[in-house]
Amino acid sequence: MKLATILLGGQYRVAIVAEDQPARLLIARWRSVGDVIRAGVAPHTLEIEREIDGVDHLILAAPIPLPARNIFCVGKNYRDHAHEFAQSGFDAGGAADAVPAAAIIFSKVPDCVIATGEPIMFDPAISASIDYEGELAVIIGTGGYRISRAQAMAHVWGYTILNDVTARDVQSRHQQWLIGKSFDTFCPMGPWAVTADEIDLANTTLRTWVNGEKRQDANTADLIFDVPAIIEALSAGITLKPGDIIATGTPAGVGIGFKPPRYLQNGDQVAVEISGIGRLENEVRTV
Amino acid sequence: MKLATILLGGQYRVAIVAEDQPARLLIARWRSVGDVIRAGVAPHTLEIEREIDGVDHLILAAPIPLPARNIFCVGKNYRDHAHEFAQSGFDAGGAADAVPAAAIIFSKVPDCVIATGEPIMFDPAISASIDYEGELAVIIGTGGYRISRAQAMAHVWGYTILNDVTARDVQSRHQQWLIGKSFDTFCPMGPWAVTADEIDLANTTLRTWVNGEKRQDANTADLIFDVPAIIEALSAGITLKPGDIIATGTPAGVGIGFKPPRYLQNGDQVAVEISGIGRLENEVRTV
Repeated sequence: MKLATILLGGQYRVAIVAEDQPARLLIARWRSVGDVIRAGVAPHTLEIEREIDGVDHLILAAPIPLPARNIFCVGKNYRDHAHEFAQSGFDAGGAADAVPAAAIIFSKVPDCVIATGEPIMFDPAISASIDYEGELAVIIGTGGYRISRAQAMAHVWGYTILNDVTARDVQSRHQQWLIGKSFDTFCPMGPWAVTADEIDLANTTLRTWVNGEKRQDANTADLIFDVPAIIEALSAGITLKPGDIIATGTPAGVGIGFKPPRYLQNGDQVAVEISGIGRLENEVRTV
Repeated sequence: MKLATILLGGQYRVAIVAEDQPARLLIARWRSVGDVIRAGVAPHTLEIEREIDGVDHLILAAPIPLPARNIFCVGKNYRDHAHEFAQSGFDAGGAADAVPAAAIIFSKVPDCVIATGEPIMFDPAISASIDYEGELAVIIGTGGYRISRAQAMAHVWGYTILNDVTARDVQSRHQQWLIGKSFDTFCPMGPWAVTADEIDLANTTLRTWVNGEKRQDANTADLIFDVPAIIEALSAGITLKPGDIIATGTPAGVGIGFKPPRYLQNGDQVAVEISGIGRLENEVRTV
């Protein structure tokens, strides 16, 4: 099932995207997909209040518009990207070990989440090296501590698409990645969330376009640390909670992978598409 | 003024610690110091419901028991500590530039906060290299975006003490510091918060003891990046919010500063004392 958070009458509401006709939405009483997950309500049991045809005139919010805490993100988790990042000179850790021996886990502040259709904004005076990173994001359904690889998938509620927008010079200058990854508007997420049964991690494609030019084209089968490994590593010390979001890393093809780097510019259209989920689109604007 | 969050009748309540007699608490209607700050209520206008003598039989919570988002932390922000960390071999960034050219900013997840008196817990099977880091933490009062150095102090509500407990092997192995710093219980905070007027950043001492042995003894005048510089760097891209917590970094004397390293063990008593605030004490326990 596909669950969206929409704005309706000035309030967030949960909407099921109809399978038979994707332009039809079934509106439930809940305020956000995050609330449904945290309450442990099975999506197929959601009570439907009304139906609406045509999503075009509706405003989609991010499925979890304000996550309850920081978004967990995995760095350098596709081999080709690990090499392009190492060669870019922007990795403060240096290029000695491009492919990490343990999952690199950092975070973005929850407040930088935006929806599909909202602008990614940046001030060239603060950073002019803005880059995209299309990623598959895991949404935790059942929390847990010390979750084993074998049990990990039972804790996954579903997935969404995330663009881990990054100010490369800030990421590099401050060594730890938090602030270069957390500028206001730097976390497009959506267009909706899909339940775990809709995605086969062994064969899901991820593609990113900038102004219609394909920049990233990968398969989640190529993750260095797969979803169970990430959940095991994270939960070894940190209790995971329902609604936690884990961005699994970006494949090769980001702006700093080009020589010279191709940073995002005012007016650029960035789209990330993941098979089985949908398309996340955002325009870039300078302020 | 000193504002505590206490547990009273099973609920969080805000208590003013009386100046004339520190064992007397004035109980206000609010649920946590964080709520008072986010509501923009001036501490001296808090309505007092009742007074209680003797704090010994009361349970102190952390002043902000569950921060609204991740805790911002500054790394390697005292010169002597930057060198001891570089020489320890635990800094994945390497020792080439021990003293950073820009503030290193990472975060801890909000859910690892504990109060004074609560145990710091760790499982030796997950990590046996647990270390303390006594720190002065800034609490933001008025939010803001692109706050200048000159304006920064007007955004500070006050301060508290924070112990940035760290699993050194995990911090090093995963390169980015989030998970080695965010294990459950790894963020003792308290015993209470003090308003900004109580602290002179040019002359505030920070001392840490383990089992009564003094390990850290420094002055906040020695911060490499001072509080205005940190606020300026953070808010250049990220809108700061009332109640945000910024741990300013730890001075020399942490466990990995010794040869061989002196990691925390089951039963150890860790106390961090900051002049003008108080004393944050936690016992270490293995699980």
